[in-house]
Amino acid sequence: METNLLNDDLSLENLLAHWQGLTHAERETIFKMLGRMDQEELFLNLSSDYQLEIFTEIPSAEKRSWMRLLAPDDIADLLQNMDEEEQKTNMRYLDYPTMIEVKALMAYAEDEAGGLMNSRFARLRPEMTVEEAIRYLRAQSKSQIETIYYAYVLDRNQVLLGVVSLRELFLADAKKTISEIMNTDIVTVLQDEDQESISKTFSNHNFLALPVVDDGLVMKGIITGDDVIEVIEEEATEDIQKLGGMEALGEPYLEINLLTMIKKRAGWLMALFIGEMFTATAMSHYEGEIAKAVVLALFIPLVISSGGNSGSQATTLIIRAMALGEVRLKDWWRVFSRELLAGLSLGCILGLIGLIRILLWPNHQTLYGEHYFLVALTVACSLIGIVLWGTLAGSMLPFFLRRMGLDPATSSAPFVATLVDVTGLIIYFTVASIFLKGILL
Amino acid sequence: METNLLNDDLSLENLLAHWQGLTHAERETIFKMLGRMDQEELFLNLSSDYQLEIFTEIPSAEKRSWMRLLAPDDIADLLQNMDEEEQKTNMRYLDYPTMIEVKALMAYAEDEAGGLMNSRFARLRPEMTVEEAIRYLRAQSKSQIETIYYAYVLDRNQVLLGVVSLRELFLADAKKTISEIMNTDIVTVLQDEDQESISKTFSNHNFLALPVVDDGLVMKGIITGDDVIEVIEEEATEDIQKLGGMEALGEPYLEINLLTMIKKRAGWLMALFIGEMFTATAMSHYEGEIAKAVVLALFIPLVISSGGNSGSQATTLIIRAMALGEVRLKDWWRVFSRELLAGLSLGCILGLIGLIRILLWPNHQTLYGEHYFLVALTVACSLIGIVLWGTLAGSMLPFFLRRMGLDPATSSAPFVATLVDVTGLIIYFTVASIFLKGILL
Repeated sequence: METNLLNDDLSLENLLAHWQGLTHAERETIFKMLGRMDQEELFLNLSSDYQLEIFTEIPSAEKRSWMRLLAPDDIADLLQNMDEEEQKTNMRYLDYPTMIEVKALMAYAEDEAGGLMNSRFARLRPEMTVEEAIRYLRAQSKSQIETIYYAYVLDRNQVLLGVVSLRELFLADAKKTISEIMNTDIVTVLQDEDQESISKTFSNHNFLALPVVDDGLVMKGIITGDDVIEVIEEEATEDIQKLGGMEALGEPYLEINLLTMIKKRAGWLMALFIGEMFTATAMSHYEGEIAKAVVLALFIPLVISSGGNSGSQATTLIIRAMALGEVRLKDWWRVFSRELLAGLSLGCILGLIGLIRILLWPNHQTLYGEHYFLVALTVACSLIGIVLWGTLAGSMLPFFLRRMGLDPATSSAPFVATLVDVTGLIIYFTVASIFLKGILL
Repeated sequence: METNLLNDDLSLENLLAHWQGLTHAERETIFKMLGRMDQEELFLNLSSDYQLEIFTEIPSAEKRSWMRLLAPDDIADLLQNMDEEEQKTNMRYLDYPTMIEVKALMAYAEDEAGGLMNSRFARLRPEMTVEEAIRYLRAQSKSQIETIYYAYVLDRNQVLLGVVSLRELFLADAKKTISEIMNTDIVTVLQDEDQESISKTFSNHNFLALPVVDDGLVMKGIITGDDVIEVIEEEATEDIQKLGGMEALGEPYLEINLLTMIKKRAGWLMALFIGEMFTATAMSHYEGEIAKAVVLALFIPLVISSGGNSGSQATTLIIRAMALGEVRLKDWWRVFSRELLAGLSLGCILGLIGLIRILLWPNHQTLYGEHYFLVALTVACSLIGIVLWGTLAGSMLPFFLRRMGLDPATSSAPFVATLVDVTGLIIYFTVASIFLKGILL
């Protein structure tokens, strides 16, 4: 075995846990070592990226049987990762009704409810009795439907009338009709709802599956909890990467092509760099002041980075709170007043530390000159202003971006830091000119 | 109605979707407007924080009946948020067996499998027939067990032997015994496994529930998908807040006490500030150089922030990849070589832009002096070094922290930026002294 990761344990459990840690070649070797049953088990449980990897290596003659192992939504995911030519070739392995279904699923974006759902769910008619329904579900459990634990009651036009859980069927009087016992207060998701909103609906309720409908309440499919778990992880990864100041990679770190990754990072890094150039412009306005009082230059990195750090805290907090639905656009004023107080307190704390640091530093007089007290005061007061400004800018920017219809996560920590750096310099030199005019400047 | 958020729609669906957007007072008013049945429905579906809010307001005489509505794991969550005195008082409302169960659940940390699990699950004996099992589960569906869709097969010592889904029972021959049809290749989680690892197991498999066992495979309870969804959201929130350079808040932004929030932010901000103070120390070493060539000071914010931004990208990428299990400790060398190439490319891109910016800027000669070309070269070469260093430091720090047994997410964007700022200054002034010695310096 090439890898010690698996400790020679080829159980499905162990393979799934370590599959993504292996190299492409290791995965191929291990897959070949497995018996057909184990291969199938593994294939069924892997994510669509790894399914594609395996599927590509399988000889054409066997492709049909491997493809037909999968449920229609999984086939759609698999095909979505191929180019158009391959999609057409592989589509031919499907039987006609499945092909129609897969095509319909592929018409949805991958991050919409329609793209996540499975169209094989358990259906009941309102006029059935409980007894008939249980017998019917029992028979349906043989087919490839995703879950029989929730059954959806549809009229002749496929409009969703209600839902019953198998558990409720077990408890109900066998002679009653489905329409008498079904729940009509149904939680649904719309077919074009995005994954962020679907995962919110899921975490607000305790259902194992949710029905997907169109505007006319026509039932399209179901989404189960495990689909949502994947989506939530993906969403969080995207947000975290954007917050780190880059485009979302969309692929695992060790899998992504190095050039593609550099491109995704270079874009934002260049934009931030060009934004940060304004610091050089701002600084050149104060060249005279720096020449007169070099001591001022010493504290520039300290002062402006504090603005960046406090802005990074504020923007991160608000972006996450927005993603979780804790903070909405209309809350901007409540956020503003909280951040005003927070920024002021944090600024005073840092200002005080800065003041003490300069005043108590050994040989501060030789280092910072005879007017060291005024320098200390300049640093302390600028810190209050800059931290307050950083906090307010960082917390309000996500509101502004969302209001403009943009993704608030664009307002990353580095983005806010860059914004605050330029204004921080202006605040610092303005405060300096107030305290030191006629003395050092 | 005080709030337009609800649009006078008091359906459970609408209440749950907007509950956290309301103020405490609004929630209280609305709760009182509901009938008892709707109140109970709402109470059962809210998270434990909001359950506690409601429970606190309920008159003592009614507390018993409200408490008994909840399943033992939910009672444990509710009690966990009270102080010890209140816990004792409220524990008295429970019947004796439930109290024992709740106490056992509370002994686990909230983020361990034991703290998330429900101990009321469906149990079967291996010697039962399929027919008996279905009848038995049908009867059990009346009790408060979390799901009847998976049944766990235990021996007399509560050791887990296998699992059968209700679906499999439906398909099986009614006369067979459970031991003949049960799955023995069981995916389990250990009772002290943490939530990060549990959610990984969940997203690697397609199960709606997982059994929790101890070292001896004695079954302790089950965890369902909706518990995991909450946990994944919480984990991501914690990581995101740490990445933003603060302690995780642990409460929704608009709910948390302002003073508590300031404390959680001030800690890291102060630590970063004290770290950043070394920039002032470093700068004071170069005071002579700055006095001789003020033009060098102009580019300090630009140069060091580029190191911070590239470090922020790298650290964010690696921390997330570690959280998702895509990158492990043993991968450090693969990551190092990727980041070496990425850092070098990104450094060259920014260096080139910096060079062009200075050379093509209108009146660069008056702004940057006659040696503007050497200044431009200094900026460009330092950028290559600093971006490379930022990238490597940012990507290796999470490995170092994890190796030390610390949380890699501690290595936040602001933390890396601070680290890189000090070393960035040293790189910048070293490069400057090479290019400008005897000319400007």
